[in-house]
Amino acid sequence: MIIRLKPDVTPEVIKTLAEKYRAIWVDGKQNLLVLPSKIKSADAALQQVAEKVIVTDSDIQLASREFMPGRREIQLGDLRFGGDSRNTLMIAGPCSVESEEQIEQAAQLCVSLGIRVLRAGCFKPRTSPYTFQGLGIEGLRLLAQMREKYGLRIITEVRDSTHVREVIEYTDIIQIGAKAMYDHGILRQCGKADKPVLLKRGFGTTLQEFVQAAEFILSGGNSQVILCERGIRTFETKTRFTLDLCGVEWLRQYTNLPVALDPSHAMGYRYGVPGLARACVAMGVDALLIETHPNPDAALSDAEQQLSFEEFQSLLPALKRVAESVGYRLV
Amino acid sequence: MIIRLKPDVTPEVIKTLAEKYRAIWVDGKQNLLVLPSKIKSADAALQQVAEKVIVTDSDIQLASREFMPGRREIQLGDLRFGGDSRNTLMIAGPCSVESEEQIEQAAQLCVSLGIRVLRAGCFKPRTSPYTFQGLGIEGLRLLAQMREKYGLRIITEVRDSTHVREVIEYTDIIQIGAKAMYDHGILRQCGKADKPVLLKRGFGTTLQEFVQAAEFILSGGNSQVILCERGIRTFETKTRFTLDLCGVEWLRQYTNLPVALDPSHAMGYRYGVPGLARACVAMGVDALLIETHPNPDAALSDAEQQLSFEEFQSLLPALKRVAESVGYRLV
Amino acid sequence: MIIRLKPDVTPEVIKTLAEKYRAIWVDGKQNLLVLPSKIKSADAALQQVAEKVIVTDSDIQLASREFMPGRREIQLGDLRFGGDSRNTLMIAGPCSVESEEQIEQAAQLCVSLGIRVLRAGCFKPRTSPYTFQGLGIEGLRLLAQMREKYGLRIITEVRDSTHVREVIEYTDIIQIGAKAMYDHGILRQCGKADKPVLLKRGFGTTLQEFVQAAEFILSGGNSQVILCERGIRTFETKTRFTLDLCGVEWLRQYTNLPVALDPSHAMGYRYGVPGLARACVAMGVDALLIETHPNPDAALSDAEQQLSFEEFQSLLPALKRVAESVGYRLV
Amino acid sequence: MIIRLKPDVTPEVIKTLAEKYRAIWVDGKQNLLVLPSKIKSADAALQQVAEKVIVTDSDIQLASREFMPGRREIQLGDLRFGGDSRNTLMIAGPCSVESEEQIEQAAQLCVSLGIRVLRAGCFKPRTSPYTFQGLGIEGLRLLAQMREKYGLRIITEVRDSTHVREVIEYTDIIQIGAKAMYDHGILRQCGKADKPVLLKRGFGTTLQEFVQAAEFILSGGNSQVILCERGIRTFETKTRFTLDLCGVEWLRQYTNLPVALDPSHAMGYRYGVPGLARACVAMGVDALLIETHPNPDAALSDAEQQLSFEEFQSLLPALKRVAESVGYRLV
Repeated sequence: MIIRLKPDVTPEVIKTLAEKYRAIWVDGKQNLLVLPSKIKSADAALQQVAEKVIVTDSDIQLASREFMPGRREIQLGDLRFGGDSRNTLMIAGPCSVESEEQIEQAAQLCVSLGIRVLRAGCFKPRTSPYTFQGLGIEGLRLLAQMREKYGLRIITEVRDSTHVREVIEYTDIIQIGAKAMYDHGILRQCGKADKPVLLKRGFGTTLQEFVQAAEFILSGGNSQVILCERGIRTFETKTRFTLDLCGVEWLRQYTNLPVALDPSHAMGYRYGVPGLARACVAMGVDALLIETHPNPDAALSDAEQQLSFEEFQSLLPALKRVAESVGYRLV
Repeated sequence: MIIRLKPDVTPEVIKTLAEKYRAIWVDGKQNLLVLPSKIKSADAALQQVAEKVIVTDSDIQLASREFMPGRREIQLGDLRFGGDSRNTLMIAGPCSVESEEQIEQAAQLCVSLGIRVLRAGCFKPRTSPYTFQGLGIEGLRLLAQMREKYGLRIITEVRDSTHVREVIEYTDIIQIGAKAMYDHGILRQCGKADKPVLLKRGFGTTLQEFVQAAEFILSGGNSQVILCERGIRTFETKTRFTLDLCGVEWLRQYTNLPVALDPSHAMGYRYGVPGLARACVAMGVDALLIETHPNPDAALSDAEQQLSFEEFQSLLPALKRVAESVGYRLV
Repeated sequence: MIIRLKPDVTPEVIKTLAEKYRAIWVDGKQNLLVLPSKIKSADAALQQVAEKVIVTDSDIQLASREFMPGRREIQLGDLRFGGDSRNTLMIAGPCSVESEEQIEQAAQLCVSLGIRVLRAGCFKPRTSPYTFQGLGIEGLRLLAQMREKYGLRIITEVRDSTHVREVIEYTDIIQIGAKAMYDHGILRQCGKADKPVLLKRGFGTTLQEFVQAAEFILSGGNSQVILCERGIRTFETKTRFTLDLCGVEWLRQYTNLPVALDPSHAMGYRYGVPGLARACVAMGVDALLIETHPNPDAALSDAEQQLSFEEFQSLLPALKRVAESVGYRLV
Repeated sequence: MIIRLKPDVTPEVIKTLAEKYRAIWVDGKQNLLVLPSKIKSADAALQQVAEKVIVTDSDIQLASREFMPGRREIQLGDLRFGGDSRNTLMIAGPCSVESEEQIEQAAQLCVSLGIRVLRAGCFKPRTSPYTFQGLGIEGLRLLAQMREKYGLRIITEVRDSTHVREVIEYTDIIQIGAKAMYDHGILRQCGKADKPVLLKRGFGTTLQEFVQAAEFILSGGNSQVILCERGIRTFETKTRFTLDLCGVEWLRQYTNLPVALDPSHAMGYRYGVPGLARACVAMGVDALLIETHPNPDAALSDAEQQLSFEEFQSLLPALKRVAESVGYRLV
């Protein structure tokens, strides 16, 4: 249950109520008190402080349609997506920052194609310790250079709580990876950040749990969360994961959060990325991440799924046409 | 391994070889001898009868790209799809034939929208014995009436081997349902039929097994098989199944069979069908099945996923625009 | 809802009610009327014919604990298992009947170890048409010979409806395989048979659907159904399937049907079969199927998972000790 | 590939080689150089420093049977398990530390039953922010009190990198939970700890990835890792998870790490825990975790799956008998 608090209720009163009901106070402009969803009605004490009471089905609360009927809009400088914008944000770049030369080539590709957001990982959540683990802080610095030099926005991933502050400092959109999405240390820090957060669904994560992870960020005070579907793990292993577009429809029906899609990780093989990317755009998705690398076969991570620049360049016009056919625009 | 036989080899010789290698002879115009795929080279006896030898990776043989590099085309009267046609065949209708009035309304809807193929089930593979099991033969007769009266093509499902002959006799495209796709009794009968077969993927079936089921039909002599993805079962239960579009990309990369998609069964809820249908069309799929019913809430089966006629009518133009944007045409 | 009918209600009255409520009449000694489970109370017409009314949660009805609080016992000549017998029936033999010599060796092994039920398949539901498909009727005849010669009971599998009558005629326990468990043609025939049916869970089948499949047999009049868990398909592919022992606990808590386990198919590799078999027995299971072959490496199907006779012989005493430790006896 | 280094090779030489091959140096007594597994042979430079060269199939290296043929033994004071000990370590206690009274009752239960290791969580990785999150440091202090007062060993969970140091300091066995098992921040800290680590398998984690996560700890220098299977997520939702005992057999066949089992989390409902616990013990497992709470219905987390003290007490003798029947002893 969400209580929209009257503006004149004092912090002391709110804190007392929060403690009593094990509730979370979202302070500042929002000024909400979020109680466990199993509490289904406001007693007198709550009624007294409430401007409005919103009862929710489950612990999908701030992300629910009951709380906010439309879809949240994300503003990133002059870029807008989500909400009623009918914009699909294109995000492109290699899996990992590997060198200055490589990331600069990717940045130049983005600029030449009118893409405004560059993605690349610095802290790689690899499953084996015996593979490339990312450039770390050095990678963050290279991304910041690209931002300054080319006017691009940056999105990069936080892997665990030990470097969440650095990532928040350097990036424009904070990406929480599929393996880190239950990490309370990260989620709570992102709740205090004032930058958009792209939260990837864990490959073994239900839709309910996925949105509940977003609630950690939302209830921390950060209202800019983008949900990213990137494939779930199923019995089928001919492809790396299974892109759950049925789940995307559920997220759009039952939550107020914008949705991004990552067909590259889902497929795991570049031959399938163009077809899937067209499918994603035809759904009218809020953002799309495509991995592209100047020389995919030599990539230090995810070599098989990254498009070459040529492949990416020839895909883009097709995506634009599909976007237009459903009344959207790639930005 | 597939041997394309020289035209002058006698049936006796072929039968002897077939027995020796546990191989299957696909006679008639095709005149092929298909050996287990673990046999990787042709010995002298095989070389002598071979016009051509095709070695395949796995028991995906007649369906493989090694055997036939393009995609098979299906001809259904004047309707063409698959191959290089860039046509997407629209198939619409209710889950089940429930009455003459209901199926006639669906037939009239198809006619009014230019849809040429009417679908509806007569033998329903329900999971409970205490629910509507379909009209059986009576349903087949009603479908045949619709064909005659409205010039529509019919697709309907065979549930088990006890009525496979009747379905083959009455229908234009034989549908093998997700729960029946391992049924050798059905597969072998369809192998001898001269009608296209739409084979649905079992919800627990790997892509490899799915195509191997098609091999039963292909090796029986029927070269017109359409693979239909209709959602697989995963840990996610907010939606009925998970539409595996990554798998579709794999099927198109590694097999020569046309691919159909059924977003209605995958989603299980009508709110998600339009978005998924657009996604399917944007991939450039060969056929699309959408469930629509004159009064979905009163439907005797799958009530939640069938579109009303109004919903279907408003979806169709959007699908046409998406198809055009990728260079396809809805037929 | 299940109505236990008063003995004096006439067939005409019952048939009229059955039609009115889309209910199934289980006639004979049981004399039950089974209505769809969504009907939650008996109206006057039903009350009039009812000796007892049992309301069930879902379409698990005749298999439910509401209908029958304990576990059903199966009687097979002088062999008893299920119920309160605290017997675990051992079933052993090769995957397929391959030759008279091979099946005779297996029969002799059973006799020498005091095992009373011999298993082997004749109609193999292979996923590829290019592999060994079983000996068919000839295999059934060989199994019948073993029964006569060695006094063994026989269990063998029906693959599809085309040969269900032959299997029912020849076997002592009818096995319905994992891929055939939704086959209405088979389920309905087995409902009319007066032999125990071992129903295997499909590898993509939920527990709810699994028990509902048993309802087809039970509502057909055959009250002797054994549920067999044999592994479900999950994302893990290092083993062939995943034996769902959590599901076994659910089946024992919520149904009245005896439960058999097949660790051989679940594991897929012989190294894991002994450990899993011990685990199954420790649960106090009603029956256990183990695949064993005189020469596993030369087996025509499932070569990797069958134990050699030596391995099986050395496993058996361990299973007996585990059974005793939980108050059960291997029979 | 693992190089067992000659004792006289200098750190400088080793570091140079490590950099050249992106290898990890496990220093100290072990003195190993672990190279990416795709390197399959040692060149001259490597040969020169190698006492022994071990080639491994995949990035399961230090955990592999190629590296160490038997199973590692864990020594915890006078407690021994794993290796050839044929001991099964019993670990019991509530899901969470909730209060001094509650944890003291659990400690007393352990003492009275001869159980030596007490488990309880302080940092709970809850999926919703609106539920009990654990007592944190205060909980660690209460656990430490129990150790002092009752001579028990403690196992408790680290949730994210922000408190890994505190957990390592307070606990005897460090538990890494299912949702934290990819967390490099935690894994690397545990690699430097000199306490045993119980690593739980993520519910969406393959066996390969699971063991690779252990490699992070092993290659950090900590050789005491216990793998804990606690249920994977499958399509079946009648039970909370699916305990993967087939996977356990694989782990025991292909790795050298001891294996623990947690049937409570897998099942999610207390009615199934006793049967599953017997199954686990019958496999001859190295450790077993059972959740038990003085008043399960009032538990602040996982209320449905915790056994009451009475249920736990009556289960224990059964487990002892099963252990004996397979030649093991509960410790």
